[in-house]
Amino acid sequence: MSDSLIEKNLLRLGLELPKAAAPVANYVPVVISGNCAYVAGQIPISNGEIKFSGKVGKDLTIEQGQQAARLCGLNMVAQLKLALAGKLNRVVRCLKLGVFVQCPDGFADQPKVANGVSDLMVAMLGDAGKHARSAVGVNALPLNVAVEVDGFFEISVS
Amino acid sequence: MSDSLIEKNLLRLGLELPKAAAPVANYVPVVISGNCAYVAGQIPISNGEIKFSGKVGKDLTIEQGQQAARLCGLNMVAQLKLALAGKLNRVVRCLKLGVFVQCPDGFADQPKVANGVSDLMVAMLGDAGKHARSAVGVNALPLNVAVEVDGFFEISVS
Amino acid sequence: MSDSLIEKNLLRLGLELPKAAAPVANYVPVVISGNCAYVAGQIPISNGEIKFSGKVGKDLTIEQGQQAARLCGLNMVAQLKLALAGKLNRVVRCLKLGVFVQCPDGFADQPKVANGVSDLMVAMLGDAGKHARSAVGVNALPLNVAVEVDGFFEISVS
Repeated sequence: MSDSLIEKNLLRLGLELPKAAAPVANYVPVVISGNCAYVAGQIPISNGEIKFSGKVGKDLTIEQGQQAARLCGLNMVAQLKLALAGKLNRVVRCLKLGVFVQCPDGFADQPKVANGVSDLMVAMLGDAGKHARSAVGVNALPLNVAVEVDGFFEISVS
Repeated sequence: MSDSLIEKNLLRLGLELPKAAAPVANYVPVVISGNCAYVAGQIPISNGEIKFSGKVGKDLTIEQGQQAARLCGLNMVAQLKLALAGKLNRVVRCLKLGVFVQCPDGFADQPKVANGVSDLMVAMLGDAGKHARSAVGVNALPLNVAVEVDGFFEISVS
Repeated sequence: MSDSLIEKNLLRLGLELPKAAAPVANYVPVVISGNCAYVAGQIPISNGEIKFSGKVGKDLTIEQGQQAARLCGLNMVAQLKLALAGKLNRVVRCLKLGVFVQCPDGFADQPKVANGVSDLMVAMLGDAGKHARSAVGVNALPLNVAVEVDGFFEISVS
């Protein structure tokens, strides 16, 4: 394990990175262009198993939705680690997250759900984890997952 | 008040910027990286009060949806002004807007609703307000708002 | 016709670019800032006619959804060609796609649908077509189209 700030904080929080999942199609989890890393939509999967499926506010509580969002965030970091050949200290800042919450009509607590991943970013990166964010509800997500999160990160040029 | 093009045009249009609302979570309204400003999803709020809630095409007319989209845009500008220490003349161009419209199944006029914010950008910035845009419908938005808009802006390095 | 890699591959695949559709509002199909092109949400339209409307998984099969996604991708390329004054060889790489699939509750195959446009990018650009991607379901899209796709491309400075 490298001694990046992110990994020190994950250790302190007792959180482990899931295994970075390989996409099953003609896309990749992370593309780096200049000093921006584009991270593909991540889902709440851990070592090959979907952990949170169903609709938040119907099948799942807000707290479960937050855990789902956090797991999406851990997968983002796992993908960044793989793309950066293990060097997570090249992650300078979290710029923007897009949080999609699978929910029924009338559910209005997407921001609380999204806090699951926003709080993780700040716990890992401090002020550099404070990002811009959009959080919206949708009626359906891939594999019936509860939350999907994509993102933009600032990366130091190697 | 600075004499930025944006503020001159707002004055001419008789529009006022709402007070920039503080996020209630571990994220920030604007992140600047290089010459790109990432603006978090803004909602139709004015001085702490939600102005447009419900579904466009069911609870609200298309015209009300347009007003909601415009108010989201005014909030974007208010957030940019705060992030740029008042210097709105550092806003070079509006690059991309993402417009999410809360609506029932079968509603197909998201582009008309999104024009509320697109027209505002051009009214404020002229040709530099012409942006790329996506407009989609969703079944649920935070706090039951009618519209949410996020965006990318080109900023001059101070 | 220029002899760009993209156009050679389209010819090989027997695919033609649709006519780039003009937006009907105060936005533009492509904005270029530095070496990033922001492409507005494209819909499955060909020469002025919507080709795929309705919900994938209800009114349309997954295969039809894939064709719709591919047509969105062809429209992206048509718009890039117009914005780059015909010089598609300035398209260096596809960075990120956002794929919105109009579908009923419970539909979970957005990734399969999105493969329609992802596979096209790789068929046109090879490894440079491998992008980050988010794919989500939504309950409603403009003009009742089945799929909308927006994107970020890396562009060589002319």
